[in-house]
Amino acid sequence: MKQTLMLAVALLVLLAGVEVRSQEATKTIAERLGYPRDAKLLIVHADDLGMAHSVNAATIKAFETGLVNSGSIMVPCPWLSEIAAYARTNPQADLGLHLTLTSEWTSFRWGPVASRDRVSSLLDKDGYFRLTESEAAAQADPKQVEMEIMAQIERARALGIQPTHLDSHMGTLYQNKALFEVFLNVARREKLPVRVARNWFSQADFLSSILSPDDVYIDRRLDINPGVAPQDWARFYSDAFKKLEPGVTEVVIHLAYDDAEMRGATSDHPNWGAAWRQRDFDFFTSDAFRKVLQENNIKLITYRELGKLMK
Amino acid sequence: MKQTLMLAVALLVLLAGVEVRSQEATKTIAERLGYPRDAKLLIVHADDLGMAHSVNAATIKAFETGLVNSGSIMVPCPWLSEIAAYARTNPQADLGLHLTLTSEWTSFRWGPVASRDRVSSLLDKDGYFRLTESEAAAQADPKQVEMEIMAQIERARALGIQPTHLDSHMGTLYQNKALFEVFLNVARREKLPVRVARNWFSQADFLSSILSPDDVYIDRRLDINPGVAPQDWARFYSDAFKKLEPGVTEVVIHLAYDDAEMRGATSDHPNWGAAWRQRDFDFFTSDAFRKVLQENNIKLITYRELGKLMK
Repeated sequence: MKQTLMLAVALLVLLAGVEVRSQEATKTIAERLGYPRDAKLLIVHADDLGMAHSVNAATIKAFETGLVNSGSIMVPCPWLSEIAAYARTNPQADLGLHLTLTSEWTSFRWGPVASRDRVSSLLDKDGYFRLTESEAAAQADPKQVEMEIMAQIERARALGIQPTHLDSHMGTLYQNKALFEVFLNVARREKLPVRVARNWFSQADFLSSILSPDDVYIDRRLDINPGVAPQDWARFYSDAFKKLEPGVTEVVIHLAYDDAEMRGATSDHPNWGAAWRQRDFDFFTSDAFRKVLQENNIKLITYRELGKLMK
Repeated sequence: MKQTLMLAVALLVLLAGVEVRSQEATKTIAERLGYPRDAKLLIVHADDLGMAHSVNAATIKAFETGLVNSGSIMVPCPWLSEIAAYARTNPQADLGLHLTLTSEWTSFRWGPVASRDRVSSLLDKDGYFRLTESEAAAQADPKQVEMEIMAQIERARALGIQPTHLDSHMGTLYQNKALFEVFLNVARREKLPVRVARNWFSQADFLSSILSPDDVYIDRRLDINPGVAPQDWARFYSDAFKKLEPGVTEVVIHLAYDDAEMRGATSDHPNWGAAWRQRDFDFFTSDAFRKVLQENNIKLITYRELGKLMK
C-alpha cells in the first residue's frame, strides 16, 4: 500500500514536470519574457554602426531620444573606434555586432579583421569583402567565415564592447544552410541571441530544421523597402505600427544624416543611401513615432532581455 | 705617329666624358630638369588622398583650379576606391603614394594591406597601425615594412593608379636609417622619385650617406606649422612664396573641408584637423595664391618631370 502510494506520487510529480515543460515549450516569446501573450513588443534597431561618422552621429542622437533602443556594430569598418568609445561610456546601451562579410559601396570599402591569408575566400580581387551578399555566400568557405566572425567578436570585446546580440550585415549569414549553421553555432557558444524571426521560416526551410526550442528568436522583422516613395515614408511606418500584431517585432532601420560623407559613400546606390537614412532618422526621432507607440500600446524591449533567456 | 694621334684623340674623348659627367654632377636639379639655375620651381602637393571623402573632394576641387598640381594617396585608407576612380579617369594627374604605416586619429582607424600575420610588428594591440610615427618606427621590422609598402604599391596599381612618386605619411620612413634604406631601395627598384629635400640633410646624417648622385631629390620642402595662428595662414604662405629661393621647392599641404566627417575624425587633434585643412584649401585655391605665383615668377612643376630623370 505504502509502495503503491509512493509510486502514485512519483507518477504525479513526473506528469507535473512534463506538463511544466510542455507549457514552457508552447509559451510565446512574449510570455517567456514575462509579458502577457497579447503584448505588442518592439525592438527599434539601427543597423550599420561603425560604418561612417554620419551613421554613428545620427544613431547616437536617436538613442538619446529613447525611441531607438538597439543597434549593431560593423567591426571591420573605419569608424569602429568612435562607436566603441560610446559603448564603453554607455555600458547599458543595447549594442550587438552586425557581423560583416560584404563591402557594398564602390567609393568606400573595407576588408577582414582576420589575417587576409586565412580568409581568402571572403575577398575580392582588390582584397576587400565582396560587393554583394550572394557573391559573398557563394564563394565563402564556412571555416573561414567562422574564423572571421570570431575575429570580429574578439576585436569588439578587446575594444570594450560587450555585445548583447548578433546579426548579419546584408543577411549574408542567412544565405545558405552552411553559413547559418556557422552563425548559430558561434551564437550558441557565445550565449548571444541572433536576429531570427519566425516569419522567415516559410522563406528558408533550413531555419526551422536548425533552430531548437532552446534558441531565442523573435516573431517578426519589419523593414521599409525601396518600393516606398520618399513622401510615404512616415505613413508606411505609422501604418505598420497601427497594425502591429502581438508578440516581438524588430523594426530594422538605417540611420545617418544626408550629408557629404554619406552622399559620397552611397552616390551610386540610392537604396539605403544618404537621403533614405535621413528619412529613417527623421521618422524614428519624431513626435509622430512617439505618439503612435503610445496610442497603440507598443512597448519597447531590447535584445538584452532576449539574451537573458539563453541557457 | 698615327698611333700617337689616336691615343691623344682617345685621351681627349675620355677627358671630355669625365668633364660631361662632372658638369652633370654639379648641375642643380633645376638645370637637370632643363630650367635655368635661378628658376623658382614649385610643386604644390596635397597629402592624404584616400583618407576621407572630405579630403578627396576638396583635393579634386583644388586640382581643378590648376593651382594644386600634385598629391599622394594613402592606400590602406577607406576612401582609396574613390580616388582610384579619379586617377583612372585623369591619367595625367600627378599622383604618388603616401606610403602609410600609422593610423593617427582615435575615432577613425585603418590597418595594413598585407596579411596581418605577416606584418605584426606594424600593428597595435587592436590590429591597426600605431598612432605615432615614432612608435611605428621603433617597433617596425624593416622586412615587414618592405612587405607592407610593396603590398600598398601593388594594390594601387591593381586599382589602375600609376604612381609618379613615393612619400611617407607622417614621415615614418625617414625616422631611422634602416627604414629609409628600405624606402629608397623600393623606390629605386620601382624607378619612382621619393620626397627627399636637400635641406633635410643637416637634420638626418644618414640621408646623405645613403643617397647617390643618381637619386633625384628636391632642394627644399615647405610646410606650415602649428605655431602659425589661423588668421596668419595666408600671410605665412604668401611671405614664404615672396621669399622663395631658386631651385625646386615642394610645399606640402593638407586639403579637406571643415565638415562633419573631418571634425569627427580629427576632433581631439586640432593640428592638421578639419579647420586647418579648410584654411589650406582656402589659400591654395585663392586668387591671392595665383597672384603671388605670377608676381614672383614661380613656375609649377610636378613629380612626373622629376621621375623622368630616374635612370
